[in-house]
Amino acid sequence: MSGDKIQLGHGSGGRMMAGLIHDLFKRRFGNPFLDPLDDGALLPGLAPGERLAFATDSFVVDPIFFPGGSIGDLAVNGTVNDLCMCGSRPLWLSAGFILEEGLELADLEGIVGDMAAAAARAGVQIVTGDTKVVERGQADRLFINTSGIGVIAHQVTLGSRHLRPGDRLIVSGTLGDHGIAVLSRRRDLGFTTPLLSDTAPLHELSALLLECCGEALHALRDPTRGGLAATCHEFAQGSGVEIRLEERALPVRREVAAACELLGLDPLYLANEGKLVAAVAGEAADRALQTLRDHPLGREAALIGEVHAGKTGIVAMRSFLGAWRMVDLPAGELLPRIC
Amino acid sequence: MSGDKIQLGHGSGGRMMAGLIHDLFKRRFGNPFLDPLDDGALLPGLAPGERLAFATDSFVVDPIFFPGGSIGDLAVNGTVNDLCMCGSRPLWLSAGFILEEGLELADLEGIVGDMAAAAARAGVQIVTGDTKVVERGQADRLFINTSGIGVIAHQVTLGSRHLRPGDRLIVSGTLGDHGIAVLSRRRDLGFTTPLLSDTAPLHELSALLLECCGEALHALRDPTRGGLAATCHEFAQGSGVEIRLEERALPVRREVAAACELLGLDPLYLANEGKLVAAVAGEAADRALQTLRDHPLGREAALIGEVHAGKTGIVAMRSFLGAWRMVDLPAGELLPRIC
Repeated sequence: MSGDKIQLGHGSGGRMMAGLIHDLFKRRFGNPFLDPLDDGALLPGLAPGERLAFATDSFVVDPIFFPGGSIGDLAVNGTVNDLCMCGSRPLWLSAGFILEEGLELADLEGIVGDMAAAAARAGVQIVTGDTKVVERGQADRLFINTSGIGVIAHQVTLGSRHLRPGDRLIVSGTLGDHGIAVLSRRRDLGFTTPLLSDTAPLHELSALLLECCGEALHALRDPTRGGLAATCHEFAQGSGVEIRLEERALPVRREVAAACELLGLDPLYLANEGKLVAAVAGEAADRALQTLRDHPLGREAALIGEVHAGKTGIVAMRSFLGAWRMVDLPAGELLPRIC
Repeated sequence: MSGDKIQLGHGSGGRMMAGLIHDLFKRRFGNPFLDPLDDGALLPGLAPGERLAFATDSFVVDPIFFPGGSIGDLAVNGTVNDLCMCGSRPLWLSAGFILEEGLELADLEGIVGDMAAAAARAGVQIVTGDTKVVERGQADRLFINTSGIGVIAHQVTLGSRHLRPGDRLIVSGTLGDHGIAVLSRRRDLGFTTPLLSDTAPLHELSALLLECCGEALHALRDPTRGGLAATCHEFAQGSGVEIRLEERALPVRREVAAACELLGLDPLYLANEGKLVAAVAGEAADRALQTLRDHPLGREAALIGEVHAGKTGIVAMRSFLGAWRMVDLPAGELLPRIC
C-alpha cells in the first residue's frame, strides 16, 4: 500500500482501491464467497422450510479504540447480535467502510484485524464489502456499516410484539459496561476505570435459550443505545403491556455504579454490547436463567422483572427502598456516538 | 417530529429516534417485513435450488441533490444494480443512515421519499434499517449504506472471472452522464449543463439478458466509480484476458463530450449509475444488443469491444484515427464523492 495514511485514491475505483481490497480486506476476510470480488456475494440457498433474518447497523463510536475493543469488534458483534435477537443463526456479513482522508493505515489494519477475529469467534464470514473515502473533515476517522444474513431453522417467531402478561424478563449479565468503558476514553471526561467494554457475540446464548425454551421464549433484544430502559419501552409498546423491573435485581458492577454516580448517569440507560434481555413465559424462566448462567457469557444473568397486563407502554421500577417509579424513555441524546 | 433540523437525539435510541422511525421511515418504507421494527427482518426462505446474492454499498455523494436524482435514488439503485450484476432478482434492502446534527429534516424527508419511489420502481422492499447521528462537523450532511438480498433462480454464474476470448463487450447506453451531472453542481466548478444523472435500476435489462443469452452471458457490471475503464480492468484481471475497445463505438452524449473537453476529463473514467456492461459469447452478441435496444433504458446500447487471449490484464483502445493506446487504471482519485 502506498504511504501510511488513507488518501482519497483509496476510494477511487482505481489501482489504490484495488490494492487496499487485495492487500487488506481480502487478506483478512478471505473466504470462497468474498474472493471473487464481484459486485455482490453468491451464497447457497436454504434448506426447505428455513427462513432468513436480515439486519443492518452503522457504527460511529468515538473513540475508535476503547478498553476491551474497537469499532471493528462492535461492527461485527453488533450485527451478529441483531441477527441472534431475531432467533437466527448468523452466517454472512457485509462490511461497508467510510474512511476519512488521513486516517492512519495502521489503525485501519488494526480494526480490520479485529473484525476478522470477531467474525471467526462468531462463526460468520464477511462475504462482500465496499469502501468510500471522503475528504479530511467530512467524516470522523471511519464509520463502518455491517449488514448480515442469518438462517432460522426452527418455527419459533421472536419479537417485541410477542410478550405476554406473566412473562419474566432476564438479562444475561451486568449493565452499562460498554457505555462506561467508552466514556472513560472521551477526551473531555478525564476519569479512568479498569472496566472493559462487554462487546461479545451472543450467538451461543441465543441458541441455548431457543433450545431450552422453544415456544416459551417470546422476545430477545440486545440493550445497546438507550440501554435496558429503551429495550423495555420497545417491549412494552410493541406488545401493549406494562413492564415492572426490580432495581435490586439489576446486575451492575461496582465500577459502573461509581462512574454513574460521578457522571450523573443511570445504568438503565447505558449501552451494552454483549448482553441480551429475554422475555420468557413464567414457567420457563428458571430453566432459562440456569441455561444462561451455565455459559461463560451469562454467569451473572438475573431475573429482573415481570410483564403485566397493566397499562400499555408503561415501564416501572421498584427501587431498593420499595417505592415504585416510572422509567422514562429519554427524549434526547445522553451519550452521542457510544456505538 | 420536534424542530426542523436533525438533532443528536434523533440517534439516541430514545423518544426522538422512535419518532423519526415511525413518522418518516416506517411511513415511507412500510411493508410487512419492516413493520415489526425488531432488530432485523424475518424473511421467507427460498425455493429449493435457488441461491442468494448479497451486496452492500455506502453512498457519500456530494451534493446530495443533483440534476436527475439524489443520494436516495443512488442508494437504492446502486445496490439493486449490484444485485442484478450478480444475476439475481433483487428482493430486499436494508438502509443505514449516518446523519449530521443540523441536517434539514426536509432534506431527509425528500431523500427518504426518493428511496421509497426508487424501491417501488425496482420492485424491492426496504425491510430493516438503522439511524445514527453524529455531531456537527463530523460527517457531511448524510451518508447512506444500503445492503441487499437477491434470489438467483437459474443456473448461470456470472462474474469477472468468466470472460473468454471471443466474447464481445456491450454497454447499455451513454457513458458519463452521472459523473458530469454531479460535477455540474459542485460549488467550485461553476459550469452548467442540461444533463441529468442516469441513475436507474437495471433489473429489467439484466433479466432480459439472462433470458436471451443464458449460458452465453458471462459477466455483468455496472460501471460506477472509475467508469468503463475500471470495469474493463476488473474483467481483464479477473479472467486473465486482454480487452480491446473501439473508441468510435462508445456512446457519449454531446454535452458529456463538451464538459469533458472543458474539464480535462475522459468519459472512459466517469461514473455511470444506470448503465451495464455485458460480456457475451460472440455468437450471442447481436441478439443481446437487440434485446437491450428494445428496452427504454437500453436504446443506445452499443457493441464496444472484444475479449482476446492476448496479454493478461491489458485494456487497449483503438482511437478514432485507428491508433491503439493503452487504457490505464487510474492510480488515485479523479472525482471524490461522485456516488
